Amino acid sequence: MPDSRTSDASELQLTADGQLRHLLTLRGLSRDQLTALLDRADAFVSTPGSAVMRSDTLQGRTVANLFFEASTRTRASFELATRRLGGDILNLDIQTSSSAKGETVLDTISTLMAMNVDVFVVRSGRTNTHADIARHVNEHVSILNAGESVISHPTQGLLDLLTIRRKKGPFENLVVTIVGDVAHSRVAQSAMQGLVTMGVGELRVVTPPSLAPGPDCVHEARILTSLSEGLHGADVVMALRIQKERFTHNEGIPDVDAYFSEYGLTQKRMQQAAKDAIVMHPGPMNRGVEIEASLADGPSSVISEQVRNGVAVRMAVLEAVTNRKP
Amino acid sequence: MPDSRTSDASELQLTADGQLRHLLTLRGLSRDQLTALLDRADAFVSTPGSAVMRSDTLQGRTVANLFFEASTRTRASFELATRRLGGDILNLDIQTSSSAKGETVLDTISTLMAMNVDVFVVRSGRTNTHADIARHVNEHVSILNAGESVISHPTQGLLDLLTIRRKKGPFENLVVTIVGDVAHSRVAQSAMQGLVTMGVGELRVVTPPSLAPGPDCVHEARILTSLSEGLHGADVVMALRIQKERFTHNEGIPDVDAYFSEYGLTQKRMQQAAKDAIVMHPGPMNRGVEIEASLADGPSSVISEQVRNGVAVRMAVLEAVTNRKP
Amino acid sequence: MPDSRTSDASELQLTADGQLRHLLTLRGLSRDQLTALLDRADAFVSTPGSAVMRSDTLQGRTVANLFFEASTRTRASFELATRRLGGDILNLDIQTSSSAKGETVLDTISTLMAMNVDVFVVRSGRTNTHADIARHVNEHVSILNAGESVISHPTQGLLDLLTIRRKKGPFENLVVTIVGDVAHSRVAQSAMQGLVTMGVGELRVVTPPSLAPGPDCVHEARILTSLSEGLHGADVVMALRIQKERFTHNEGIPDVDAYFSEYGLTQKRMQQAAKDAIVMHPGPMNRGVEIEASLADGPSSVISEQVRNGVAVRMAVLEAVTNRKP
Repeated sequence: MPDSRTSDASELQLTADGQLRHLLTLRGLSRDQLTALLDRADAFVSTPGSAVMRSDTLQGRTVANLFFEASTRTRASFELATRRLGGDILNLDIQTSSSAKGETVLDTISTLMAMNVDVFVVRSGRTNTHADIARHVNEHVSILNAGESVISHPTQGLLDLLTIRRKKGPFENLVVTIVGDVAHSRVAQSAMQGLVTMGVGELRVVTPPSLAPGPDCVHEARILTSLSEGLHGADVVMALRIQKERFTHNEGIPDVDAYFSEYGLTQKRMQQAAKDAIVMHPGPMNRGVEIEASLADGPSSVISEQVRNGVAVRMAVLEAVTNRKP
Repeated sequence: MPDSRTSDASELQLTADGQLRHLLTLRGLSRDQLTALLDRADAFVSTPGSAVMRSDTLQGRTVANLFFEASTRTRASFELATRRLGGDILNLDIQTSSSAKGETVLDTISTLMAMNVDVFVVRSGRTNTHADIARHVNEHVSILNAGESVISHPTQGLLDLLTIRRKKGPFENLVVTIVGDVAHSRVAQSAMQGLVTMGVGELRVVTPPSLAPGPDCVHEARILTSLSEGLHGADVVMALRIQKERFTHNEGIPDVDAYFSEYGLTQKRMQQAAKDAIVMHPGPMNRGVEIEASLADGPSSVISEQVRNGVAVRMAVLEAVTNRKP
Repeated sequence: MPDSRTSDASELQLTADGQLRHLLTLRGLSRDQLTALLDRADAFVSTPGSAVMRSDTLQGRTVANLFFEASTRTRASFELATRRLGGDILNLDIQTSSSAKGETVLDTISTLMAMNVDVFVVRSGRTNTHADIARHVNEHVSILNAGESVISHPTQGLLDLLTIRRKKGPFENLVVTIVGDVAHSRVAQSAMQGLVTMGVGELRVVTPPSLAPGPDCVHEARILTSLSEGLHGADVVMALRIQKERFTHNEGIPDVDAYFSEYGLTQKRMQQAAKDAIVMHPGPMNRGVEIEASLADGPSSVISEQVRNGVAVRMAVLEAVTNRKP
């Protein structure tokens, strides 16, 4: 759940003269700052099948992947982004190493910092671990948030923005609909923050009544419980991954089949959306739960583009934080 | 057990104009194609103690190791082959990551493909996973089979061919004997397919009666149950790793000690083979079960050469599939 | 506990003409040899925040991390040292791979050696595994001990020497005090061996009576049970990590709180030491057990320098063993 301390994070991530030092949240970044990152990421988007663009921006720099939660795609995306910029990557599985010996997270960070790790990519199920680390590190070190509890996943938000902009053009002309358990989705939180900053035409959220977002949700979103209403004329539809564990432990939440029949995205339902609407999903997908398989694989799906753009935005962010002017 | 669909794999792995796109099986590759790979691999064989040959053939290319079964040697061999060709390697332990979140294998492949992974090295205990992936991927992407159920391990087959050719010369002059549970050995299947294609002089298989190979075994092999008969005059003798779990769950299979006394390779028994015969083993070895320790470490053993040649054939295969002409 | 065979290790690690081939123990290395390594390491010490120094000394060479015990810091330190010298690193988690298939450690080593691994970095809870491997490998291959039971951790000893020399100057002028369970600390064993060779002015060991070191401890150390006495006038104070498991299973050992009140290093107690004394700890720290948090984070602490110097000494050692003249 968003908490009051997150306002700290947005201040913490900029230097005194407004350069990006850490990426902790999209909250508090200006439209110009987001646009600069998206523009730079555009240059890094690769062409399938050709050798990827490489640079030596991170030559002599070391990036450490510190994942307190399991991850394939985000970890791999940061790893490839680092290597394609010429940097060294250090993969650390924190759950099975020093933390088992009782060392604090900040001591682990200090140790790696002393080995000249320049950037820490951190995923944690806890809130504010990232901000605590950011407060702790030396001036030249940067923290990138690769997932924080249910509140923030800023590089995912950026890749969603980049995908929408590349496919559908200026945000102010667009109706964007997010479907699912928005309140518990760090993906949705970051996407909504970015979309509002970029001046999205209309932002809709469709959720079951039992999962309605709390008062911390961006005020600009229209909260709906009817999928039909949400899809009507939408240019961009984003399905969220259903965390199945919520179905079994909470009351008032429908079972998987009931969820699909009421909120699952299908080709048929997408006919209510605008012509040429695109369908997004952050992955990993539960086919047949939040999205129909044929829709995920169909022409309106931009799911692979999201992944591809994910490497590009991470390259742009890595470049931005390591190229700061002193 | 080989199944009827494997004939697909041999067609699937070549482009319309006959270039190698995937390496799924040695079945269906011509003598010229195998010879070209072996010739190229010869150039990559390293000299112990000197800096290894490096090239930039895979510069800007990414190879992903996707192992659904544990592996040290094959994973490391592909990793080193990739790096020595200048490529990036991504190691993914699929069992502990996304698949735990319910994502399908093909969705994981799509995700990594979108990150510009060019080659997938896949090991799976299931049959046809490799072919299913090969059918799924984009035109420029290649799949290399690093072990498939009990039916195929083509780079192991190639390294066995290379080792035999380097040590013993032309195949048509040779008697090759494979000893062990051939029916359940993907190593043996690939070696036999390669040897037959290369025109081996005589191919013998020695197995306990209870492990006799089925009708899908290459027809050219002479199936024997007597080790003495199998070794008589052999130029090349290959012991297979015994999978101890088979001893405990099946009837009619001897225990470990009985196996060694009847089918274990020893220095003494090797006196029945040709003078200068070589002894092979795919590893990891059970010393004292399928092979006597002193034989494994003795002058007729080429086990280390097999490993060394393994890196070389993987470099040759990686180069071949990524250097395809469009 | 040190055992009689360790004298072998010190002979084993030098070539016939006295060059460093393996690093198994600091025992037996001369003051000149240690000084040469420290001088070279000095050149590799990085400046925080600047791109690290890189070289191509290990270009075309492969280093394998073989850790039979979990490790974050030492593994990462060797990995970064290897990469910054231009080498390839292969990380192997031996506990979850081939050894599960019954292969011996020496067979795993042979396999990796055949893939042209040039240096093995080995951590093992067992004594003499390192020496056994060193006896087994080919002439051009080197073994670096990254932790051996309770008896040896030579690169840790070197980084401690480097840190002391950089901070406090010539060893002969210094009083060095080590506090904790010295008898069961491979860190302390290697540090003491190095300090004695370098001609340290005075070496003190402070331990609870129940943990008193045995007769194999370096004879030059004064064994004390009073922390006050040990700290008096000391220039360098090294706290050891308490292995909490010892508290619960042994008699006569104080509990954690009692340990801290009697042997825990604090800012207050450090007033008994020399002005400008430095405080060291090998990590990972148990804050509030063997060291007070404010002392660990205070101006006298050189804990981060130790880590930084650790990468530098590992670069120096890697360079030394791979640059041997034939």
